[in-house]
Amino acid sequence: MIYSNERVDQLVSKGVQIIQSPEVFSFSLDAVLLAHFAKVPKKGVIVDLCAGNGAVGLFISQKTNGKIIGVELQERLADMAKRSIQLNDLEEQMDMLAIDLKETTRYIPKDSVDLVVCNPPYFKELPTNTKNPNPHLAIARHELHTNLEEVIAMSAGLLKMNGKFSMVHRPERLVEILQLMDKHLLTPKRLQFIYPKKHKEANVLLIEGIRNGKSGGLKILPPLYVYNEDNQYLPEVAEMLYGK
Amino acid sequence: MIYSNERVDQLVSKGVQIIQSPEVFSFSLDAVLLAHFAKVPKKGVIVDLCAGNGAVGLFISQKTNGKIIGVELQERLADMAKRSIQLNDLEEQMDMLAIDLKETTRYIPKDSVDLVVCNPPYFKELPTNTKNPNPHLAIARHELHTNLEEVIAMSAGLLKMNGKFSMVHRPERLVEILQLMDKHLLTPKRLQFIYPKKHKEANVLLIEGIRNGKSGGLKILPPLYVYNEDNQYLPEVAEMLYGK
Repeated sequence: MIYSNERVDQLVSKGVQIIQSPEVFSFSLDAVLLAHFAKVPKKGVIVDLCAGNGAVGLFISQKTNGKIIGVELQERLADMAKRSIQLNDLEEQMDMLAIDLKETTRYIPKDSVDLVVCNPPYFKELPTNTKNPNPHLAIARHELHTNLEEVIAMSAGLLKMNGKFSMVHRPERLVEILQLMDKHLLTPKRLQFIYPKKHKEANVLLIEGIRNGKSGGLKILPPLYVYNEDNQYLPEVAEMLYGK
Repeated sequence: MIYSNERVDQLVSKGVQIIQSPEVFSFSLDAVLLAHFAKVPKKGVIVDLCAGNGAVGLFISQKTNGKIIGVELQERLADMAKRSIQLNDLEEQMDMLAIDLKETTRYIPKDSVDLVVCNPPYFKELPTNTKNPNPHLAIARHELHTNLEEVIAMSAGLLKMNGKFSMVHRPERLVEILQLMDKHLLTPKRLQFIYPKKHKEANVLLIEGIRNGKSGGLKILPPLYVYNEDNQYLPEVAEMLYGK
């Protein structure tokens, strides 16, 4: 069922439908970029931490026969994700846990996961002067209930040796991301910066690490621009959203 | 004087002449990129570590009235730099020390420098199977007589509080660069990746740090491509080399 403040969006390029609600949570371009960036294994276990309405898991479901388990603290968002899973007849492949990320290893064994994807809250704190009056959005955007180290530590704990970690985040936190990945033995292997348009600084980064990977050999992928001078999606991004 | 195996090249855009020798040392595009990237103070003291034939210092001399001191281990290269300084009538502004980088603080006081620029050797070791038979080039390219930590530690030691460090290096060493800058209290502020052409991975990085700067706020500058599809310099790079 779909509630009155919800709508069903179709992400044509991924062949899935997804229940959204501007009042509660809608997936962003960042989720699409992450789903596109992640190297998804054909089988095995994939965990989507900070899953929100399940967008990243839904998008990558077409690329794998593996099991996809979402972890989302907010009951309301996890419930949207569960209904999207039903809507797409993906109950066999996908599961959604409405739990605190800290509890994940009570449900999913340590050292058992092939890929962790994560689109975590980006912002360190919630400055009192710009407090988001909507608690659903505030929790998704700000590190109120989890933080970068918790996310990275849990990802590393869940992953098998040589399992992969793919995350989308903000460039201003790059140094901290690399320090924490190093601390938790996730070796960075691929890094890509997303630029809103030409001549602008990057505003999104995508990073892949390998648990206990050999150090060195980090690759900086070609940059990706999102918009052209007329603020229209450039072809590469349009294709991620709408297909060819 | 110019030796028989040397030539004088003019970098039109910078208005300087520079003595080069393919057998000993010629500046690379990386030196031009670094000179362009560095925020050069109008006055004060600027140190060019691993100065080679003095290219970076010569290029930035037109942007500042500050004193520029090059540090180069190899006598032969430092001598070329000294003759280039004379050739350009820059003896008042520029100086060249033919010393081991480790000895720099015997000549330049600690905590006294406004900007350190550095184009260090990029490669960790010299694999026996690819040993460069030319020792001048081998020393410039491989960490035979210095290494990344020594370069970063010396830069931090030379700089005043809030002095700036600008370095060109390879992206595969980004993680190590950031770790060492953090260890030596150089806070990264600007990072730019250089891509040989579209759809290729980055092969050069430029990084700026501030000694004891506030952490956070790293900016990822717009990417720079070097060549077009026909392997000709793109306008932005051509302008750095040849001027408008």
